Amino acid sequence: MINAKLVAQSHPNHQTIVQISETVAFGGKELVIIGGPCTVESLEQMETVAQHLEGSSVQALRGGVYKPRTSPYAFQGMGEAGLDVLAQVRSLYNMPVVTEVMSIAQIEAIATYVDMLQVGSRNMQNFDLLKALGQAGKPILLKRGLAATIEEFVMAAEYVVSHGNPDVVLCERGIRSFDNYTRNVLDLAAVVALKQITHLPVIVDPSHAVGKRELVAPLAKAAVACGADGLIIECHPEPEKSVSDARQALSLEDMVSLVDSLKPVALAVGRTISETKGVGFKPTPICCVA
Amino acid sequence: MINAKLVAQSHPNHQTIVQISETVAFGGKELVIIGGPCTVESLEQMETVAQHLEGSSVQALRGGVYKPRTSPYAFQGMGEAGLDVLAQVRSLYNMPVVTEVMSIAQIEAIATYVDMLQVGSRNMQNFDLLKALGQAGKPILLKRGLAATIEEFVMAAEYVVSHGNPDVVLCERGIRSFDNYTRNVLDLAAVVALKQITHLPVIVDPSHAVGKRELVAPLAKAAVACGADGLIIECHPEPEKSVSDARQALSLEDMVSLVDSLKPVALAVGRTISETKGVGFKPTPICCVA
Amino acid sequence: MINAKLVAQSHPNHQTIVQISETVAFGGKELVIIGGPCTVESLEQMETVAQHLEGSSVQALRGGVYKPRTSPYAFQGMGEAGLDVLAQVRSLYNMPVVTEVMSIAQIEAIATYVDMLQVGSRNMQNFDLLKALGQAGKPILLKRGLAATIEEFVMAAEYVVSHGNPDVVLCERGIRSFDNYTRNVLDLAAVVALKQITHLPVIVDPSHAVGKRELVAPLAKAAVACGADGLIIECHPEPEKSVSDARQALSLEDMVSLVDSLKPVALAVGRTISETKGVGFKPTPICCVA
Amino acid sequence: MINAKLVAQSHPNHQTIVQISETVAFGGKELVIIGGPCTVESLEQMETVAQHLEGSSVQALRGGVYKPRTSPYAFQGMGEAGLDVLAQVRSLYNMPVVTEVMSIAQIEAIATYVDMLQVGSRNMQNFDLLKALGQAGKPILLKRGLAATIEEFVMAAEYVVSHGNPDVVLCERGIRSFDNYTRNVLDLAAVVALKQITHLPVIVDPSHAVGKRELVAPLAKAAVACGADGLIIECHPEPEKSVSDARQALSLEDMVSLVDSLKPVALAVGRTISETKGVGFKPTPICCVA
Repeated sequence: MINAKLVAQSHPNHQTIVQISETVAFGGKELVIIGGPCTVESLEQMETVAQHLEGSSVQALRGGVYKPRTSPYAFQGMGEAGLDVLAQVRSLYNMPVVTEVMSIAQIEAIATYVDMLQVGSRNMQNFDLLKALGQAGKPILLKRGLAATIEEFVMAAEYVVSHGNPDVVLCERGIRSFDNYTRNVLDLAAVVALKQITHLPVIVDPSHAVGKRELVAPLAKAAVACGADGLIIECHPEPEKSVSDARQALSLEDMVSLVDSLKPVALAVGRTISETKGVGFKPTPICCVA
Repeated sequence: MINAKLVAQSHPNHQTIVQISETVAFGGKELVIIGGPCTVESLEQMETVAQHLEGSSVQALRGGVYKPRTSPYAFQGMGEAGLDVLAQVRSLYNMPVVTEVMSIAQIEAIATYVDMLQVGSRNMQNFDLLKALGQAGKPILLKRGLAATIEEFVMAAEYVVSHGNPDVVLCERGIRSFDNYTRNVLDLAAVVALKQITHLPVIVDPSHAVGKRELVAPLAKAAVACGADGLIIECHPEPEKSVSDARQALSLEDMVSLVDSLKPVALAVGRTISETKGVGFKPTPICCVA
Repeated sequence: MINAKLVAQSHPNHQTIVQISETVAFGGKELVIIGGPCTVESLEQMETVAQHLEGSSVQALRGGVYKPRTSPYAFQGMGEAGLDVLAQVRSLYNMPVVTEVMSIAQIEAIATYVDMLQVGSRNMQNFDLLKALGQAGKPILLKRGLAATIEEFVMAAEYVVSHGNPDVVLCERGIRSFDNYTRNVLDLAAVVALKQITHLPVIVDPSHAVGKRELVAPLAKAAVACGADGLIIECHPEPEKSVSDARQALSLEDMVSLVDSLKPVALAVGRTISETKGVGFKPTPICCVA
Repeated sequence: MINAKLVAQSHPNHQTIVQISETVAFGGKELVIIGGPCTVESLEQMETVAQHLEGSSVQALRGGVYKPRTSPYAFQGMGEAGLDVLAQVRSLYNMPVVTEVMSIAQIEAIATYVDMLQVGSRNMQNFDLLKALGQAGKPILLKRGLAATIEEFVMAAEYVVSHGNPDVVLCERGIRSFDNYTRNVLDLAAVVALKQITHLPVIVDPSHAVGKRELVAPLAKAAVACGADGLIIECHPEPEKSVSDARQALSLEDMVSLVDSLKPVALAVGRTISETKGVGFKPTPICCVA
């Protein structure tokens, strides 16, 4: 019924492993937790985030520098200056970094600075972008479209893989529905289905799915329980001051607590979450950052 | 924003406990698992189900005798003869029984025979039925409407409670959406929200939500992980021969395995699932059933 | 694909005509326009409405006396006193009257007083009510459920007809969707499809569909253009003071203008709208109302 | 509530006129009908279409040469060779031509050959493409996203206009919903709302909205009746042989009949449809096509 070829689950135990750094890989027994703000606002902001998270089980940082905004008059992201911020925190804190790519012209620069390129929901069927990402040379985090069927989502991944890039991680982030109590409806059945249909890693973004921080932690546990390979969660040093999506970001303290609370759930379903080095642990700074 | 009075969570640790038998209660630390077929087809069928499940952690039986069917020409359920079947298995196997009520005229008979009356999705806003159930004298299992908002769901419960019956358990069972890969979209964020908004127990029906048996077990785990107080899951001695919803029913063996697999997840979030007495354990039959 | 029997279009020119008074019938060349408030509030209110509309092309009155409300604390309608109001205006102004029935127990009383019983969206799959309406002895106005598929809608009509009542008029009134700019999404393709699938008359309720009065008139024209057999439109002497759905009701003046503006559209598609007798025309009052 | 600036309706009678040829303009009293196949398949195919339609009231041709397809293995369109076909029929039959642009890299070539660049539903929030189209130098036909709110749609137009291109025509083409009887749900209330919110022309694509040819004509009439400024309708010399969307294309004969049937509806709402020169009228061929 779903006519994927390259991403289709062809035999039961095939599982693609997508490596984004020496130690961080999606699709293995260990789950990958990505944390960080919706938008990169300054080096200081990202350093504060990284300092808090580096000692926790959060293994990768997120932060948007090219932002898809409904209004052309809303802040569109720091652009290249933001990429520079990401490169600095990446190097200083030794954490891989994920950021969104919105157009073919941005691919080269982003791929130079970060470890994983995110395709946002609004671009899930931007087929020319998907084809170009087949040659990006870096792993892709492909978010489900706002109203994409499971078939369309799988076939979007097939576009990237069939154009040369096997390193695709799928991300369920909620779909549009009639109830505005939550921003979107988190579709965990899609996670289960995608794990059965494809051999790609599948992660979950509960923050964008629900849009209310008080709902994030229980849904993160649910995602782990049903077999997700990781999570991407928004957090911010001062959530209420976030330039975008302020209502859904966790404080850094809550982020660390949330991740800790996931560990027993992961174990209950045969998975693990990386060791905590200790909240606030700060490694020796590297003197000369590129 | 949601103007519930009686069912609203007024102070943090208020939790309604809904007791359906001496030993089975929703809302406590122990989760309640309800199992059984979509439709009661015969005494033999229900006995087979009960024999398998009584020794497992499944604590209550389900089975429809009045069936809401899209077509007037589809089997409408066994009716009163089915109530008699339910009464017999209830007595023989000492398990509380849940069945659907479709109209005010059925309340008295159903309340005489079973332990909990289910209001189906299509009747969630059948307000006259809800009012009448305020006087049913038995606990109510209220399923979310196919496209009911969280507010409408909460207020439907308020109808029952404000008309005299405080024993309401909410059940998330999937909402309508655009993708027909699954039958509905299971909305676990609603479970989390309902637990925050109300003090009522909230359970999940993953079977009707997804409509495909291979997706049920992981979603049952997810439901437990995000804080559900129980599950209602379809199972059948010969799923492919079920007179209704054959595609989603589990075999009895898979049902028992599923329930066992939930135990570590429950523990991981501070909950428990009742002891297993041993699969297939058969108590001494009672000689004279009413 | 849709397994209706009695309501299915079996040969191209079969069209059921549903007569609700000597001169008002759905399904013929002449369209039927029903107008009136969401809720019957007083005899005075209904008289004001009737006085304005009786001279226009509006041929029937609507007004709810049993109201399905999300909250049990909202006004539930005038009940039997409201039926009495409807009976009086019906008799005084010689206009047939439509009102909603919410439960089996109300059928007899409502059928005694009014000319057509409306089944609301929330009860479209209240199958026991549908079956009982098969014996109501009066025509049924069946509104589409909030998230009912076309198949489910057709089969709901089949319930009524197969239980003995061939006089069913279908009403499209908008379905739930993700955008809250309008209250629901008016699905005129459903009207076209229903006219092809069944031989029943199909009318449109643009007021509930969109929930904003400034959108009603153009959509009423669209409904006529695509083949609807009539319209049901909310209007109120003082829309902003309506006890329910104030945002969508037209003033009585706007209602009359709207109906006039439909006439050329009706003619353009080979239909007619009844003669205007002149706005405000008042017939000799009947001295002794029942 | 909707924070558009440049496209917002600021005073009641402001209406943008978008000219795509000397004689064809959107937004005036005369409606614009665009016809043609989903996909350009050959010069012969497009000539057959143009021969049939040039004598009718269809004023512009459509045909995709870059095709957004769910699967990377489906036909992706003729590409530049298709642009050449469009240029030839445009010149031979003196009809303006519309085709879809999928990426920034295609803009220059497409803008050289055709009269209007279409942004497809999947790219409605491809913001970098929208920004670049601000400099395209040709009018834009912006289709509503599959699950775009009215606000998002309006703001997508604002992106194009605020980047330098005032010539934007909006196109409602159906939104995703739960019923698969039709492909999407045609949202004519959005047309009415968009006409009130913005001063841009708004047209309707009933073919993609419903996906079934037997529903297209009545919905085209409905679109005209509610105030649409034009229509874009799929037709094909042999609909059942169309390489894409075969189920929804009209035959060329049906297309001409449909357009004729719209004329009285247009008149009924104070609009006109261009004169018919006579079906099949063939102008003197131009000897040397570029």
